Amino acid sequence: DVLDDPRSGPAGKLFACVSVAFVAVTAVGLCLSTMPDIRAEEERGSCSPKCRNLFVLETVCVAWFSFEFLLRSLQAESKCAFLRTPLNIIDILAILPFYVSLLVGLAARPGAGGNKLLERAGLVLRLLRALRVLYVMRLARHSLGLRSLGLTVRRCARGVGLLLLFLCVAMALFAPLVHLAERELGARRDFSSVPASYWWAVISMTTVGYGDMVPRSLPGQVVALSSIEAAAGLWASAGPP
Amino acid sequence: DVLDDPRSGPAGKLFACVSVAFVAVTAVGLCLSTMPDIRAEEERGSCSPKCRNLFVLETVCVAWFSFEFLLRSLQAESKCAFLRTPLNIIDILAILPFYVSLLVGLAARPGAGGNKLLERAGLVLRLLRALRVLYVMRLARHSLGLRSLGLTVRRCARGVGLLLLFLCVAMALFAPLVHLAERELGARRDFSSVPASYWWAVISMTTVGYGDMVPRSLPGQVVALSSIEAAAGLWASAGPP
Amino acid sequence: DVLDDPRSGPAGKLFACVSVAFVAVTAVGLCLSTMPDIRAEEERGSCSPKCRNLFVLETVCVAWFSFEFLLRSLQAESKCAFLRTPLNIIDILAILPFYVSLLVGLAARPGAGGNKLLERAGLVLRLLRALRVLYVMRLARHSLGLRSLGLTVRRCARGVGLLLLFLCVAMALFAPLVHLAERELGARRDFSSVPASYWWAVISMTTVGYGDMVPRSLPGQVVALSSIEAAAGLWASAGPP
Amino acid sequence: DVLDDPRSGPAGKLFACVSVAFVAVTAVGLCLSTMPDIRAEEERGSCSPKCRNLFVLETVCVAWFSFEFLLRSLQAESKCAFLRTPLNIIDILAILPFYVSLLVGLAARPGAGGNKLLERAGLVLRLLRALRVLYVMRLARHSLGLRSLGLTVRRCARGVGLLLLFLCVAMALFAPLVHLAERELGARRDFSSVPASYWWAVISMTTVGYGDMVPRSLPGQVVALSSIEAAAGLWASAGPP
Repeated sequence: DVLDDPRSGPAGKLFACVSVAFVAVTAVGLCLSTMPDIRAEEERGSCSPKCRNLFVLETVCVAWFSFEFLLRSLQAESKCAFLRTPLNIIDILAILPFYVSLLVGLAARPGAGGNKLLERAGLVLRLLRALRVLYVMRLARHSLGLRSLGLTVRRCARGVGLLLLFLCVAMALFAPLVHLAERELGARRDFSSVPASYWWAVISMTTVGYGDMVPRSLPGQVVALSSIEAAAGLWASAGPP
Repeated sequence: DVLDDPRSGPAGKLFACVSVAFVAVTAVGLCLSTMPDIRAEEERGSCSPKCRNLFVLETVCVAWFSFEFLLRSLQAESKCAFLRTPLNIIDILAILPFYVSLLVGLAARPGAGGNKLLERAGLVLRLLRALRVLYVMRLARHSLGLRSLGLTVRRCARGVGLLLLFLCVAMALFAPLVHLAERELGARRDFSSVPASYWWAVISMTTVGYGDMVPRSLPGQVVALSSIEAAAGLWASAGPP
Repeated sequence: DVLDDPRSGPAGKLFACVSVAFVAVTAVGLCLSTMPDIRAEEERGSCSPKCRNLFVLETVCVAWFSFEFLLRSLQAESKCAFLRTPLNIIDILAILPFYVSLLVGLAARPGAGGNKLLERAGLVLRLLRALRVLYVMRLARHSLGLRSLGLTVRRCARGVGLLLLFLCVAMALFAPLVHLAERELGARRDFSSVPASYWWAVISMTTVGYGDMVPRSLPGQVVALSSIEAAAGLWASAGPP
Repeated sequence: DVLDDPRSGPAGKLFACVSVAFVAVTAVGLCLSTMPDIRAEEERGSCSPKCRNLFVLETVCVAWFSFEFLLRSLQAESKCAFLRTPLNIIDILAILPFYVSLLVGLAARPGAGGNKLLERAGLVLRLLRALRVLYVMRLARHSLGLRSLGLTVRRCARGVGLLLLFLCVAMALFAPLVHLAERELGARRDFSSVPASYWWAVISMTTVGYGDMVPRSLPGQVVALSSIEAAAGLWASAGPP
């Protein structure tokens, strides 16, 4: 129980702190590995010391997470129930891609051809390795606050679901209308298709309003105003944002 | 009652699911039919297999909705009351345009001239066929959640109406002021007329903020800040967003 | 009391409706008089029939409002108290400019020189005539809903005032910081001065977010994020938007 | 106690008013000193009368604040506790830079070389002098409303902290995903690195929505919509904005 409860004593607290620190290090590593200069090096195939350090950092972090995962799985009474817990599935999804990419890298080294299969595998691997972001979900293990917030969200899940459902219905209703008003009546090119209008509708009705798509003809603006006022009325009656 | 209540048994549940599925198919079909490549084909007058498939899909969906509507109308005791229910009026509005456009298409085939009357009728027909989006409202029949949300909105209707009324009054008050401040005092061209300023006022006071119209002169910004703070105060005292 | 209470009987109801209709006509007239084509005519000095009709419309509306004001003032017991009521002051402010501009127009007709004094007077007059928007406030007389909303706002005035005060303080705190971060540390030109940053701060902290001024340097973005999160925290703890 | 409590009598009230007035004057002076024309003069090294007046104004204000601080410190029983109060630390941080810059100015006058050390010191001094904005925090001394608002914020601190924590977690989860979707799958250049995506994620999830970074590929938009809807659901369940 040292592993699961940060309130179990100094050992539990220390363990939680170390684990959170590793999550933070992974997040920073992920940030650094996408900085333009390092990406450029990676694409050229060369690897500067900086790039190598990042790789070492990542390896250490993954080693720790694997170690923690093994500890937890050894401690679990029922392996089956252990593997079915959502947080553990997330752990597996976050840890596995590193080992897979290591294996593929080893396999590809001998015949270092630039064949297409490898490139496609590279894309898949990069996608998989991005699952590292799931480490962030591990914080839910150690932060009591996040857990209580998760409970709040779950308790309000029905109301929130209804709101999102209503948002979807309003989106499905207003997006084609604004597309029609802008294209047929206003002869504008912005709202080129209904899916593009879906994007506009959600961005407008949640009051984000990027401004990348804006109705400019009079009929389009009338439809837009009514959709925005409908959304405002919805938030006012059924809850925020 | 199999038609009206998804809780009436497995038959009712199945019926509701099929109906919702057809609504989803119609929505997807509407999306696809507005994609740029298919629109281009339509305008050229040619019709690829893809375009033809979409038409078949639409026909099947409309056939199902007509069938459902007939079933319902046969089941209704009083035809008059049936035709006055809002949801049934919506059904008629959504189904009819398809048949009308079919008839017009048949009538126009023989004398296939490119006369103006036909073009104008084509625009009207496209507008009418866009009423297909009303199918989305049918979901209110089958989703208990949407119904309860509708009730919530109706219960809060008075408060929401007041908020929208106040939004309109604030709009009518601040839009001419910002127009004046920007045009007369700031000598800017953005806020060309008061109706254009109405658009700006609603977009700003609901905190959407596209950024397509922004006051840039000092007097305009002062008016804008006071209008936005008035709106923020309004939301804070009388309800969100 | 026929004038003051729409619930006093059919005469009061009719009177209220006529009054609201005249307000609506004035608002539409104001919109039309700022449309680009009519402004162009006005600037050329010529006056088409359309322009003349607008003037007649305005004259009729002002005549009605003057008549209503006279009726009210005759009915009032204490002229002094009558002139000190806010809604009546607004009426005077909205009615007077029309007569003043009429007088000035008559006075200027004989010596129709294009001297500077006249031009300046023209600007003042245009500003004064824009006070017509204050007619909208007259709706508060006739709409019970607006009155109750006004009461709600007045009841929450203290909380709202606190929120706006806090918004001002946060603005005065973060605007110079972001100006400093962008100018000194980020060497960007967008946030040219502190007052310009005030505009950015309010637009960002009320979540409007036009996007006309965006911090692009790293220190500027850090300051901006902390100010936005502070605002989000403020709304979350002390009330929306 | 005349210094601390505006309700202690007319002297306390007067003292509070004078102090607030000096804060306002400092804020206005800070605004003016960043206006482009005065900055240009400063960079040229010349100093017009306007610039000189600003300096006199600032000196008077700092003199008053120093005087007030001395009075307060003389009145305090325990100097140690006095220096540890947050508001007094803020006072010191706000007052000191003026004297430091004065000293440095005197020291630098004799050997008026344009050496690099001096330039760097100039940057540091400008940064320090920007701490003048902290004077705004002094308002908390004199405004009871600000104090009560501060208490509200402190009372809700836990809830607000949870919301911000959740915002950070959601940001750390969605920013790499949208970066990945836009870069790898959508081949767009906007979301150049994960930290840049952090900026986008916070701006979007607080519904500010500047529009300087907008996902334009289909996978990017899907990730963005889900992140925005998650945020909307969060605000709806756990509190606004």
